[in-house]
Amino acid sequence: MRISELSAASGVPIPTIKYYLREGMLPAGEQVSATRARYGEEHVRRLRLIRALLEVGRMPIASIGKVLTAIDDTSLSLHHVLGVAQYAIAPAVEPHASDEEWARARAEADAVIDALGWEVEPGAPARAELAQAVLTLGRLGMPADGEALRPYADAAMRLVTEHEIGTIPLGGSREAAVEAMVLGTVLHSRVLDIMRRLAHESVSARVFDGL
Amino acid sequence: MRISELSAASGVPIPTIKYYLREGMLPAGEQVSATRARYGEEHVRRLRLIRALLEVGRMPIASIGKVLTAIDDTSLSLHHVLGVAQYAIAPAVEPHASDEEWARARAEADAVIDALGWEVEPGAPARAELAQAVLTLGRLGMPADGEALRPYADAAMRLVTEHEIGTIPLGGSREAAVEAMVLGTVLHSRVLDIMRRLAHESVSARVFDGL
Repeated sequence: MRISELSAASGVPIPTIKYYLREGMLPAGEQVSATRARYGEEHVRRLRLIRALLEVGRMPIASIGKVLTAIDDTSLSLHHVLGVAQYAIAPAVEPHASDEEWARARAEADAVIDALGWEVEPGAPARAELAQAVLTLGRLGMPADGEALRPYADAAMRLVTEHEIGTIPLGGSREAAVEAMVLGTVLHSRVLDIMRRLAHESVSARVFDGL
Repeated sequence: MRISELSAASGVPIPTIKYYLREGMLPAGEQVSATRARYGEEHVRRLRLIRALLEVGRMPIASIGKVLTAIDDTSLSLHHVLGVAQYAIAPAVEPHASDEEWARARAEADAVIDALGWEVEPGAPARAELAQAVLTLGRLGMPADGEALRPYADAAMRLVTEHEIGTIPLGGSREAAVEAMVLGTVLHSRVLDIMRRLAHESVSARVFDGL
């Protein structure tokens, strides 16, 4: 298809498609003349992936670029690509705490992960994020030890093992598996957060109204 | 305590405290002379609340101002204040879809919420967010119907009813209850998302490495 048809099929405006081509986020089409290129289904799929990460995942364009580069590098294992995607969506953590206070929160977060028996890299940004959450909960006098965090860990692990891993097509192409995995990480994170806020509103309507 | 002591107790720099005072996010101290004011425990607590919403909740400062105004307005019910906090943390949704496609996704999202029997306002921003997630999942060929979303809804509702509602001190002051509720919404949302990414990494390490 021509670039105008690619635009119609994907819902992405032509100037945006040209930008993704220039940035190497979308592979070049097949050149059929000096001024025209032909695009295929793989281009439609890649554009949908970019839009999903952008609009639902709310990832910055530079982070999406990094994830796409990892997806396209067939020398990387699926686990490695997932790591790149996770690190790209993790927000920067700025503790605003003394070294000592921060070290205590990090140790507490690491102890929670150890007690769960989970395999998580020492440098995983989610460890620092958990430490920041532990620090903040503690400062506010809210429980933040392993017992208080356990229900969240259990709920998260149940969703990943019972629902998400099964949706990844391991029998097909590497590209399909890797795309499903990255999308699952980003989109299901959003779905879970949205559901939690909806549940909160509903429970609040019943318990708190009038209070 | 003096502003320098308030800064030391809260870990918030003096110029930032002055900014919060000017913006009305922190109530004025008790004026003890023309150039000095005295601050109390309520100021320390309010500063911790602001920092928690800022650093862990990652809320923009303008949204935090709206939430604080709602907390301070004692004419509002707890349910109403929670609504303000939820609406303040909800990101803007820009569908990038035809009217028809968007209406279909909205109807699907509303049907999912109806089927759950949840009480959610028709204008709640999380409805639009869910519609966008449904739209994106559908475009990517991933399941997005009630059955696929149910595990997320169930996990979210279980956490809210079994763990979060119980942590809100309803017997004490309105201020304590409302602060706990707002913080719970924002901080536990982060905790759950962090746990989900940690669980993903751990499962991926076991299932995908080498693939």
